Amino acid sequence: MDSIGRLFRITVFGESHGSDVGVVIDGCLPGIPLTTETFATDLARRRGGTAGTTKRLESDLPRFLSGMYRGKTTGAPLTIIFTNADQRSEDYPESPIFRPGQADFTANRKFQGWNDPRGGGHFSGRLTVGLVAAGVIAKKIVQPMQITARLTEVGGQSDYAKLLDETAGQGDSLGGIVECQVTNVPIGLGEPFFDSVESVLAHALFSIPGIKGVEFGAGFAAARMAGSTFNDPFVSGDGRTLSNHSGGINGGITNGNPLLFRVAVRPTASIARKQTTLNFKTGQMTQLTIRGRHDVCFALRTPVIVEALTAICLSDLLMIQKAFTTGKE
Amino acid sequence: MDSIGRLFRITVFGESHGSDVGVVIDGCLPGIPLTTETFATDLARRRGGTAGTTKRLESDLPRFLSGMYRGKTTGAPLTIIFTNADQRSEDYPESPIFRPGQADFTANRKFQGWNDPRGGGHFSGRLTVGLVAAGVIAKKIVQPMQITARLTEVGGQSDYAKLLDETAGQGDSLGGIVECQVTNVPIGLGEPFFDSVESVLAHALFSIPGIKGVEFGAGFAAARMAGSTFNDPFVSGDGRTLSNHSGGINGGITNGNPLLFRVAVRPTASIARKQTTLNFKTGQMTQLTIRGRHDVCFALRTPVIVEALTAICLSDLLMIQKAFTTGKE
Amino acid sequence: MDSIGRLFRITVFGESHGSDVGVVIDGCLPGIPLTTETFATDLARRRGGTAGTTKRLESDLPRFLSGMYRGKTTGAPLTIIFTNADQRSEDYPESPIFRPGQADFTANRKFQGWNDPRGGGHFSGRLTVGLVAAGVIAKKIVQPMQITARLTEVGGQSDYAKLLDETAGQGDSLGGIVECQVTNVPIGLGEPFFDSVESVLAHALFSIPGIKGVEFGAGFAAARMAGSTFNDPFVSGDGRTLSNHSGGINGGITNGNPLLFRVAVRPTASIARKQTTLNFKTGQMTQLTIRGRHDVCFALRTPVIVEALTAICLSDLLMIQKAFTTGKE
Amino acid sequence: MDSIGRLFRITVFGESHGSDVGVVIDGCLPGIPLTTETFATDLARRRGGTAGTTKRLESDLPRFLSGMYRGKTTGAPLTIIFTNADQRSEDYPESPIFRPGQADFTANRKFQGWNDPRGGGHFSGRLTVGLVAAGVIAKKIVQPMQITARLTEVGGQSDYAKLLDETAGQGDSLGGIVECQVTNVPIGLGEPFFDSVESVLAHALFSIPGIKGVEFGAGFAAARMAGSTFNDPFVSGDGRTLSNHSGGINGGITNGNPLLFRVAVRPTASIARKQTTLNFKTGQMTQLTIRGRHDVCFALRTPVIVEALTAICLSDLLMIQKAFTTGKE
Repeated sequence: MDSIGRLFRITVFGESHGSDVGVVIDGCLPGIPLTTETFATDLARRRGGTAGTTKRLESDLPRFLSGMYRGKTTGAPLTIIFTNADQRSEDYPESPIFRPGQADFTANRKFQGWNDPRGGGHFSGRLTVGLVAAGVIAKKIVQPMQITARLTEVGGQSDYAKLLDETAGQGDSLGGIVECQVTNVPIGLGEPFFDSVESVLAHALFSIPGIKGVEFGAGFAAARMAGSTFNDPFVSGDGRTLSNHSGGINGGITNGNPLLFRVAVRPTASIARKQTTLNFKTGQMTQLTIRGRHDVCFALRTPVIVEALTAICLSDLLMIQKAFTTGKE
Repeated sequence: MDSIGRLFRITVFGESHGSDVGVVIDGCLPGIPLTTETFATDLARRRGGTAGTTKRLESDLPRFLSGMYRGKTTGAPLTIIFTNADQRSEDYPESPIFRPGQADFTANRKFQGWNDPRGGGHFSGRLTVGLVAAGVIAKKIVQPMQITARLTEVGGQSDYAKLLDETAGQGDSLGGIVECQVTNVPIGLGEPFFDSVESVLAHALFSIPGIKGVEFGAGFAAARMAGSTFNDPFVSGDGRTLSNHSGGINGGITNGNPLLFRVAVRPTASIARKQTTLNFKTGQMTQLTIRGRHDVCFALRTPVIVEALTAICLSDLLMIQKAFTTGKE
Repeated sequence: MDSIGRLFRITVFGESHGSDVGVVIDGCLPGIPLTTETFATDLARRRGGTAGTTKRLESDLPRFLSGMYRGKTTGAPLTIIFTNADQRSEDYPESPIFRPGQADFTANRKFQGWNDPRGGGHFSGRLTVGLVAAGVIAKKIVQPMQITARLTEVGGQSDYAKLLDETAGQGDSLGGIVECQVTNVPIGLGEPFFDSVESVLAHALFSIPGIKGVEFGAGFAAARMAGSTFNDPFVSGDGRTLSNHSGGINGGITNGNPLLFRVAVRPTASIARKQTTLNFKTGQMTQLTIRGRHDVCFALRTPVIVEALTAICLSDLLMIQKAFTTGKE
Repeated sequence: MDSIGRLFRITVFGESHGSDVGVVIDGCLPGIPLTTETFATDLARRRGGTAGTTKRLESDLPRFLSGMYRGKTTGAPLTIIFTNADQRSEDYPESPIFRPGQADFTANRKFQGWNDPRGGGHFSGRLTVGLVAAGVIAKKIVQPMQITARLTEVGGQSDYAKLLDETAGQGDSLGGIVECQVTNVPIGLGEPFFDSVESVLAHALFSIPGIKGVEFGAGFAAARMAGSTFNDPFVSGDGRTLSNHSGGINGGITNGNPLLFRVAVRPTASIARKQTTLNFKTGQMTQLTIRGRHDVCFALRTPVIVEALTAICLSDLLMIQKAFTTGKE
């Protein structure tokens, strides 16, 4: 459903063109100081406005509905909302043409036509603003872990400024690869079998709209390596390894080396150029032109979202691990 | 932890060299006929013994501890165990040399030295026998969906018999790619946001020991495609699309086209040839030779496990979807 | 934590003197028509203002933040908030005297002093407004089940108007018993063992601040009955029984007879008359006089909350049951 | 379903007349020494054989299938099974007469006739042997908390030996009240709102077959007390109160005083004397005589089960609380 986490638990809500989007954080540690300023940097990284990103501009000012007292978290559920100000619903007339690559068709069928179709409704990337807000808090909880995600390629290129311009000019869109590294990771995060670190992180990361692949360490390249090359030999008593093909994880549990993984972001589904697709009313193929303001490459805005979900997952795993290690010994 | 699923819920237990491994299936529909024969084909696909797989041979005869009456499931928890017969614990003396690429080090640290280290203990691939058993039942529940996984490459090659022999001769190991396709998928499986089909499947798949990557549809290649190429145009009123770059999923929800995904399997960590790694007692680098019987390429045995986890996840999503669609309309 | 339910899932948030209190309903069926009017009757039943209840008056106008489109639920998370208007925080100076019978002391210790202490903060009965709102929706989902809770006694008396007046005059408070009956209950709700109907309902009911006991059917009186008296003989093929000492539940599962249970509501903890208790700063016993506006007997406002939680639980159990019965047969 | 707990998680399985009953404990702390002897005292308290209890005698020898190594828990799932030896299935012919007060009818309807009807199947009190085993371990985890449950009355009498004899002679049965007290309870256990200590405990306790009521502290008597009497004044800085009408819980959180609660146990449903009830095949009322070996008063065997579930819940709450208190401060 719309929640994730066992002890540090996030619930997201809202629609692209509804009144507000937001997040409830249950299991938030008390005493964490927060102001709207605390969120400014990460929210700005997520927000559109630069080259290659949507022209929709939201002020993204977090409003605390609950869980704050005298500027600090209380331990009760922390609810943060963001009012949708710059929505233009007239751009989204109801239509018998479901946009290719979007959730329009599946949402319509799953919810029997009752879903809010405007701008993708609940399936919109707009929802990720709540995730980024929760991530800001989670990053404080996991300190001294340091989480850094960056875009390593767009459209297959590592230097992609010119490609973005060209693609925008063609009314087309691009995907990209985001790589994330976490340093200062304690040994022992992750739970046996189904709650491996890979399982928990992949579960969260695949909830970001448009992610089509997740790989850890050597990832898909590992399938073409020999075991003698892939294995990471230990070189010091704290578990440091010579290489890091495992991405900092053995048996689903962190080994103290940096966590390393990559996610594949598909190109933006909403493109300006004409697409040939079905008119579900007439049953005929037709030409679709999508209006609205869209990213040429929403992968540009994805690194901070990847960081946020990583921090959210690690907060939860860290708290769970503490519960077990502080027991009988 | 060791459970997965919300309504159709699996719990695995056991160790490589313990007395038994097994699975509890909670939420199993009643009235499903089962005999030991029902499981034979899939268990044989998972079992070692052929070229490139371990020489350890277990009869893998399922024993029903609970949940069966007169040859059919009752709706109460179904417990299936497999007795470990062919274990050779003398192959696994306790050692200050943690095997590279294995869970030895992380299990030792996480469980403060109390873990069962023999043959990987609870982290062993032996645990997957319970998953395969649960998968056999899940496949019946999801009918007429058809789940087919196959190994598409080993060590980077699609024709890999000779490479396996050579690698075995060198005391080395290989990884591979498993591709899975599901046909006859109903529209509407998957839940909003955090329980997208990708999230649920990836969570399960990354619990298989040795999986380093999961990608859906075009996957990582999607990151290098233009939106006009990636988007799958609709061509018929039932949601069929011309291409299937989305892997049968839009907005985290099945669109009725075949589900399609691939997993990257790393090479077997236990290799016969010498490895240079740390002796944690002396603090010196040393030469490690691993005894025991191991797969040259355990990816050979992985397709049926991928099918099992896919069936388990789809059973759960199918039951959840039924709960919602049979409500008020 | 602050969530309950497996498929129909409620999360509550807010504080007595925060800006808003509210509820997120995840797993809400789509297509349910809702206006602020829909909630009016039940919210009025919960609201203070009549004899024996608090003088704090909130307009309790629900505001929909998400999950609504064109007046109907969409299937996405439905967020409803209520703005706190009539709070008087000056009535709650921070104090080294924790009020007896309240959560002041435990909240302070659990949250290391960071909790919002004003009016009980997150532990306030104010939070139940969100439950009542969720209950209104759940009542629609469980139709044709009919849920009716009523106050059967106050201070041990079934006719209690005069007693309330006297007690108010003495600056004291009273408890009561709420009885709830559900008719038109389908056979088969409730899950084996840990999710018995009693378990699920009691879990929810004991979250209402001030509930000290829950009993089903004959309840505590059953402990004094002979088996030959207690057993409910079947009298018709649809499972109707002659008596209903089991409260409509056998083996944790509904048997089609009316659900019947009672909850014990303790007297309001905040009383006007002086109490002798510890000053935690001086370490001396002291006289405490509590200001603020409080119920003489908040049990008067409890029936509609009991109904709400009952409806919430039954919605969840009904959906779960549908998931299982529509499978293989 | 058949699981309970968030971090310390129990799954029960088995049937009265199946081959085995058992329990999987997930999230069990590593390093706890266990032998079959460890369980002997509590298993003996649960076992039948004394006056007023069933003549069915099981040796109740725990067998560890997983999670143990060199006599200590490993941190992996601990599976304990008990083989059913003394079952007499011929006592339970399939019958169109569902026994009053039992789960026969509801189990048949819920599971569409596929349930195992012998001796109550999965609904049998036999399942509680696994709970008691899990409780033995949980009691070690919650030390120095001390959990003591005792039978305070049978059939309404505190001295009940003679009444038991008389009732047995009449082929009838009796219920009783079990009171449980926990001392050395740390302050702060229990989570806000839905996971109050009362909610978590009641959820577990109502899963014991035959429990019809649960009350904390003054319980139902609180409904007849004035607030000035009910409130427990604080008398020392560690939270000790003069009285304990709250049962050691304020706002759902432990306040450091002893936890105190009572459960109502209904009389055994299976009685020797004739009962008039429906024959579901003929549609006529008929005389039913139940064979088999049954307790006159299974409340005699309930205290150790109540202790077990209490320990299981407190283990979970203790671990959750540690996760939160060891965070940012």
